[in-house]
Amino acid sequence: MVLLRSHIGQTLRAARRDQNRTLRDVARQARVSLGYLSEVERGQKDASSELLNAICNALGLSLSIVITDVAREISAYEAVKLVVVDAA
Amino acid sequence: MVLLRSHIGQTLRAARRDQNRTLRDVARQARVSLGYLSEVERGQKDASSELLNAICNALGLSLSIVITDVAREISAYEAVKLVVVDAA
Repeated sequence: MVLLRSHIGQTLRAARRDQNRTLRDVARQARVSLGYLSEVERGQKDASSELLNAICNALGLSLSIVITDVAREISAYEAVKLVVVDAA
Repeated sequence: MVLLRSHIGQTLRAARRDQNRTLRDVARQARVSLGYLSEVERGQKDASSELLNAICNALGLSLSIVITDVAREISAYEAVKLVVVDAA
């Protein structure tokens, strides 16, 4: 099952790594716990909208940039699933 | 502050109204309570990723369609905010 939180987590983690930043650094700037950010990045926790904004701010990204990327990833994921189903 | 849940709620509500369906009908099909769906639509509650999928399914929409629309709405909202700030 495609889950919104999985794709949000992947996008946030990729952005953080692109910036060569640690979980600790981004978590501190976003004022969330390191464990919370780690769970969000791994798609294990649905971030609240407020804390998602705080994490985006800490990464210097607008919410629209993040969600546009997430939408693109989910679309690609669903397209692959369709191809697999068609081929089965 | 632009909140993801507000835009998800607006998109889900617009989709339901386009289909001329009631909260009760969609809530029953998605197996969520009417109160929960109402709060999600009004942007008062962050839907879990699993229940967001259930609501999308009940509306006959893929998650990618919904999130692409949400991304577009957030981008438009942020653009308006920028114009207002520039004009101030």
